[in-house]
Amino acid sequence: MLIPSLIEHKRDGRSLRPEEWAALVRDYGAGRVPDYQMAALLMAVVWRGLAPDELAALTDALIDSGERLRFDESFVPRADKHSTGGVGDKVSLLLAPMVASCGVAVPMMSGRGLGHTGGTLDKLESIPGFRTQLTLREVRVQLERIGCAMLGQTPEIAPVDQRLYALRDVTGTVESIPLIAASIMSKKLSEGLSGLVLDVKTGSGAFMPQTDRAIDLARTMIGLGEVRGCPTVALLTAMDRPLGRACGNVLEVEEAIEGLGGGGPDDLMEVTYALGVEMLLLVGAASDPVDARARLEATIRSGRALETFGRIIDSQGGDPAVLDDPGALPQARAVEIYRAPRSGTVSSVEPRRIGRAIVELGGGRRTVDDDIDPTVGFVITVKPGDPVRAGEPIASVFAGGDDGIVTGLAALREAIVIGDEGRLTPLLSHRVTAAGVEALSPNVAVA
Amino acid sequence: MLIPSLIEHKRDGRSLRPEEWAALVRDYGAGRVPDYQMAALLMAVVWRGLAPDELAALTDALIDSGERLRFDESFVPRADKHSTGGVGDKVSLLLAPMVASCGVAVPMMSGRGLGHTGGTLDKLESIPGFRTQLTLREVRVQLERIGCAMLGQTPEIAPVDQRLYALRDVTGTVESIPLIAASIMSKKLSEGLSGLVLDVKTGSGAFMPQTDRAIDLARTMIGLGEVRGCPTVALLTAMDRPLGRACGNVLEVEEAIEGLGGGGPDDLMEVTYALGVEMLLLVGAASDPVDARARLEATIRSGRALETFGRIIDSQGGDPAVLDDPGALPQARAVEIYRAPRSGTVSSVEPRRIGRAIVELGGGRRTVDDDIDPTVGFVITVKPGDPVRAGEPIASVFAGGDDGIVTGLAALREAIVIGDEGRLTPLLSHRVTAAGVEALSPNVAVA
Repeated sequence: MLIPSLIEHKRDGRSLRPEEWAALVRDYGAGRVPDYQMAALLMAVVWRGLAPDELAALTDALIDSGERLRFDESFVPRADKHSTGGVGDKVSLLLAPMVASCGVAVPMMSGRGLGHTGGTLDKLESIPGFRTQLTLREVRVQLERIGCAMLGQTPEIAPVDQRLYALRDVTGTVESIPLIAASIMSKKLSEGLSGLVLDVKTGSGAFMPQTDRAIDLARTMIGLGEVRGCPTVALLTAMDRPLGRACGNVLEVEEAIEGLGGGGPDDLMEVTYALGVEMLLLVGAASDPVDARARLEATIRSGRALETFGRIIDSQGGDPAVLDDPGALPQARAVEIYRAPRSGTVSSVEPRRIGRAIVELGGGRRTVDDDIDPTVGFVITVKPGDPVRAGEPIASVFAGGDDGIVTGLAALREAIVIGDEGRLTPLLSHRVTAAGVEALSPNVAVA
Repeated sequence: MLIPSLIEHKRDGRSLRPEEWAALVRDYGAGRVPDYQMAALLMAVVWRGLAPDELAALTDALIDSGERLRFDESFVPRADKHSTGGVGDKVSLLLAPMVASCGVAVPMMSGRGLGHTGGTLDKLESIPGFRTQLTLREVRVQLERIGCAMLGQTPEIAPVDQRLYALRDVTGTVESIPLIAASIMSKKLSEGLSGLVLDVKTGSGAFMPQTDRAIDLARTMIGLGEVRGCPTVALLTAMDRPLGRACGNVLEVEEAIEGLGGGGPDDLMEVTYALGVEMLLLVGAASDPVDARARLEATIRSGRALETFGRIIDSQGGDPAVLDDPGALPQARAVEIYRAPRSGTVSSVEPRRIGRAIVELGGGRRTVDDDIDPTVGFVITVKPGDPVRAGEPIASVFAGGDDGIVTGLAALREAIVIGDEGRLTPLLSHRVTAAGVEALSPNVAVA
């Protein structure tokens, strides 16, 4: 196999054969293909895309580079959710214990925050003692015992995907639908799932803001899941404003706990229920959407979801006391209220500006090795379309000191735009399945 | 400077600023930009191209990565020729001593053969003892003494271009007009030239077969030369058949010596004269094309060109006896005549097939480290359009043994196609200057 010829092939818009992709991934994993050749090939893929059989071969090769969770026929069904990332998105913290409380195992593998979006691992690790680096053996034991494990990508799962992702991150080759799809699905398909739901964010705060590109990505991932025995459904959800009210690691854990206790903000709960309904239906754990919704609501009402979350925290080394006493979580040293500078209607709450401000406050990473301060962030109580009066409190800044407060207030002034009119776009816009695309709101067109 | 952002910029079709190119080349040269980032950037350049100011900045940065030959105002004018590479192209061996014999200094920096095309350095090194690795100091002394030096790229000249070229060679990023232009011109513009002529090959045996792409490349290089005080002209010449009769290192040196002695094949001499005329005119060493041609012809007739070549060989460690006695050059161990398998008209002599056969016979390189056998090759005495009779000798194979003879005869059977008709395309098709493109034959259109 002559690597420069393969790169030239892709560069010229032709397809590589499936066995060539298999050999490339294997040889890259074994150190026989240098990073510079892989980087040139990745850029050629960003340029030319991947044909369906190339994408399938790449994904399979990434899966085969590591181990997979395998389950007996007799084991309970497994479901997971993946989000393409947003601001204020703490859905995983609620969804995993809720679905697990319905008798579906949830081996939830998440990532860290990078760029303007947060990451579930960082949120979990703001709970004192919480350990997210589990071995596959620990995951299996905890799935049997509690029905849920919340972990970071282990070194055993798709290790070549981890190396490729790190290379893409520094070579401008992240933004490619087939490369994103292969990366996400190689990890998820290694979890031995019976079903997978994708939360594909759209709008200004999403990595892929345009609806048509988001639908393309959803379709691509669904195609990969379906033919590999993992029924997959995607919901397109709004990320043109933060989800819920809390943005920042500790603040989001607190909001998740409130949600599990029955007091979560409406938009957060709607997205969580919608994704949960899909998970239960995909694995046959509910008869229809109404039944699924009722089962999920019952896990909140009965306290079972909160209890399951407590068992997860306990099992992974964290202090479950945080569920009853928010003071057990680390707290920001400085807090300040932000008041509406004028009367009017909120026309936008810009998630990217909020996400960037969290990084500026020390709560997010500029590079993968950065330490973070989990206590900083924002609570924003208004949404686009809300009327406000001048001087009314509409948000709070949580920071490490006075400088952070100044930074945070400045960010809020930019992020929350108050004008004469504003409109809330539909929270759930599209549902994508193997069968096609369905509009979920009368205000959106089927792309 | 955040390298991934620069790569993303280029990937998305935007231009980098000149100072960003300067910093990239400087930091790559200093080892601060890793090969994998440069490889991704190069592929993005193949995809998106370079804007004129980016190309200028890249070329300047490559020049500035090394040293330049500098000459006093009082020094004689300097001219050089660059060919984009072909089969049977021994023009440099004649042209350099001819032009030097007209009082124009020729600091001729050449390359090695790679792929199907030969390289001037390999041809020169088939002369026993000939040394092509000169220091810039040696070059300067020889230019003062003899008016010509024939050398390989020294480590002092555009060293980052050398590293970039090696990276491009293994990452499928060679074929990009701006990258080719920047690479060639950064070397040539480091030679301190008063004028440069480019021999841009077209046709099936050229690296860039299509005339319009060849003209693009010519224009791009001319643009770089002109604004840097080096007037540049390009001739587009035919490479849909080998140039001259001899193909292979020793065989080509022999043909060049014949040519300097007045007995060269017409096509070889026509291309050599045409390029030489441009060189003399560019530096003001002749008053008009007729004068220039007469001066060049006189260097052959008088024996001065051959004598100059002898002085170059002597000065660079070779044995000038080869000029009088071809037996002083190493000779192939096996020779066999190839006869026309049928009567008819030669419809093609495929240069790529001939070039590949020379590599198969051991006379060219598969990788840069390969040793070569300089004695092998072909002498082909027919051109497209020539009538032939079955059984008539039309070529010879020169090989290291019987196996090579079999390989060589098989290659000739494929390369020389005899049919019912054939036509010789014009040897010189276009002349490109800063002023525009001129067709040199009634049979070609101005692109």
